[in-house]
Amino acid sequence: MNSTHRSPHTVRLSLLPAAALTVALVITAPAIGADSPAGPLVLKAQGSFFVGGETEHTSATTGTPGGFFFPNTDDIKVNQMYVQFQIPEADAHHIPVVMLHGCCLSGKTWETTPDGRMGWGEYFVRRRHAVYIPDQSSRARSGFDATIINEVRLGTKPSSALPNIFTFGRSAAWELFRFGPSFPTAFSDEQFPVEAMDEFGKQVIPDLNATLPTPNPTFANLAALAVRLHGAVLMGHSESGFFPEQAALTDPAGVAGLVSIEGGCSTNLTPQQIATLAKIPTLVIFGDHLGDVPSVSALWLGALQGCQQFVDQINAAGGDATMLHLPDAGLFGNSHMLMQDKNNLQVADLVLRWIDQHVERE
Amino acid sequence: MNSTHRSPHTVRLSLLPAAALTVALVITAPAIGADSPAGPLVLKAQGSFFVGGETEHTSATTGTPGGFFFPNTDDIKVNQMYVQFQIPEADAHHIPVVMLHGCCLSGKTWETTPDGRMGWGEYFVRRRHAVYIPDQSSRARSGFDATIINEVRLGTKPSSALPNIFTFGRSAAWELFRFGPSFPTAFSDEQFPVEAMDEFGKQVIPDLNATLPTPNPTFANLAALAVRLHGAVLMGHSESGFFPEQAALTDPAGVAGLVSIEGGCSTNLTPQQIATLAKIPTLVIFGDHLGDVPSVSALWLGALQGCQQFVDQINAAGGDATMLHLPDAGLFGNSHMLMQDKNNLQVADLVLRWIDQHVERE
Repeated sequence: MNSTHRSPHTVRLSLLPAAALTVALVITAPAIGADSPAGPLVLKAQGSFFVGGETEHTSATTGTPGGFFFPNTDDIKVNQMYVQFQIPEADAHHIPVVMLHGCCLSGKTWETTPDGRMGWGEYFVRRRHAVYIPDQSSRARSGFDATIINEVRLGTKPSSALPNIFTFGRSAAWELFRFGPSFPTAFSDEQFPVEAMDEFGKQVIPDLNATLPTPNPTFANLAALAVRLHGAVLMGHSESGFFPEQAALTDPAGVAGLVSIEGGCSTNLTPQQIATLAKIPTLVIFGDHLGDVPSVSALWLGALQGCQQFVDQINAAGGDATMLHLPDAGLFGNSHMLMQDKNNLQVADLVLRWIDQHVERE
Repeated sequence: MNSTHRSPHTVRLSLLPAAALTVALVITAPAIGADSPAGPLVLKAQGSFFVGGETEHTSATTGTPGGFFFPNTDDIKVNQMYVQFQIPEADAHHIPVVMLHGCCLSGKTWETTPDGRMGWGEYFVRRRHAVYIPDQSSRARSGFDATIINEVRLGTKPSSALPNIFTFGRSAAWELFRFGPSFPTAFSDEQFPVEAMDEFGKQVIPDLNATLPTPNPTFANLAALAVRLHGAVLMGHSESGFFPEQAALTDPAGVAGLVSIEGGCSTNLTPQQIATLAKIPTLVIFGDHLGDVPSVSALWLGALQGCQQFVDQINAAGGDATMLHLPDAGLFGNSHMLMQDKNNLQVADLVLRWIDQHVERE
């Protein structure tokens, strides 16, 4: 970072009262020199590692490894979770944020948007948070356990044992993600960059969660990641919307905040589970047009209602849970993929402000 | 970047003759302030995008998408290639480098090593090259076409139609990758961080290349990426060792250099194909102990011999091909995963110097 840019910011820090400071940092930060999304990105560190993973023994009848030069009797790793991270040079004291993708997607969700704009991953780094982006266990760079597929190929298991591999087609995504009432018609105020639908389709990859044991190892892996970071905000989306809460119920030790975006919330938690979650600040986010796509309106309105009930339960237990329905905050036209919408950095600013006020309590 | 670090370097640039400059930049660069692997990383830009990809129509009998809320009749994207990139703030005039992983691995190959050291991806950025790291088509964040698996599950295809999914177990990798004569015995001068074998095992993920059409779409995707970059060095490893050459044979327009690491070389190319490749500087790299693991010595000595024949063919046609067998350059104990070996940055320096001298011709 250039020192001629750092000085004015340091002055602001010392001159402004706390409330104004929050606004200066979060809302007007783009004007502060090297922190601008347009300036160079200065990193203290970056890299990748794995969390979790168990050793699985394979044999000639289980058929994994798939046979290249060697017999199949060997040990492979399964259920591990790949994590990419970046730590800003100017991280100050801000808390790390873990961003987990949803169904049929990967860590790509948080990177460059389909139309080429900055994603939340880099934006949060520029806003002085270390950012950790996993691929769910059994997805993308985390790999998956192909044993069952090889067993069926070898004839030692019936084809009915194959997992149900999810993915989304173009028309399905258009409706379920609320880009418009039906493909290719978009809502007039649609914020998703529908002109880049072809590029978005390339992000959609097979979801092999059906190959995982129960409970999903990603829960424990997220919890272990938070412990490793000595405290982190866990963020989930869609399929993984409630994964942060599941991680906290596995081990709350490292979980400093929960952000659940456009997913379903559990409404039958025990009083003990509610008490555990009530100790952790929680933010639930939904976009717009929840009731406006006929084929999925019951799904989305039900998710909103269930999450409102969850938020109320947490608050009734003395917790600090916030429902952020974006139209209520003056943001309209947001899709299910709100971290990629045209106003994605505006939405990010709301999350950053919530972290400041509810997790970091500045 | 801190201007107190930039100045001395600018002085060097203007005072040193070209030959000395190459040495100063490539070999002694770690001493140059902000360029040191230990200093902050200053990026002009970073992000990710896709190259290639076709639309595939699915139906109730093909069974992809796997069915979440919608019928299966839809359009999905297949054969696309995910690419992550970083461009250094101080990129000067250096050429972009594309780093492609091998079998049962992903772009993770080039990131943090299993024992936590800097990988080639960041190191080349710090050495002023823009770096592009793909996941092969059908691997990791590029996704794969799960249609055939769903068809077998639905009973519309026999189980024999399932792809042979490759992976490597711990013992197989130990021998094939030449960590030592047999698991868990390492060579006395072994450079691979065998103490991190457990972490390396987590990088090994299922290889679904058997689901791809012929020719492998990664060839054309690499060629298209090189065109998009207006010139790039293509680097491949192991399974993908000869993919750079395959890409150049698909379309040589953007291919400025070829680096083939520890893979097999084609020795039955046509004179026309040889002539095409002879226009592009080529570097072939092999590590140590090629003949020292009994179960794979024929494989590795054969690969070395085939690649030497390829190098000779290119040079006989007037080309500029170099065989770099690391022991001949004074580096001993290197494994198949030489980009992760303990002396990985020393090996990288040899590649960077070769790029300077043969591609950039400084």
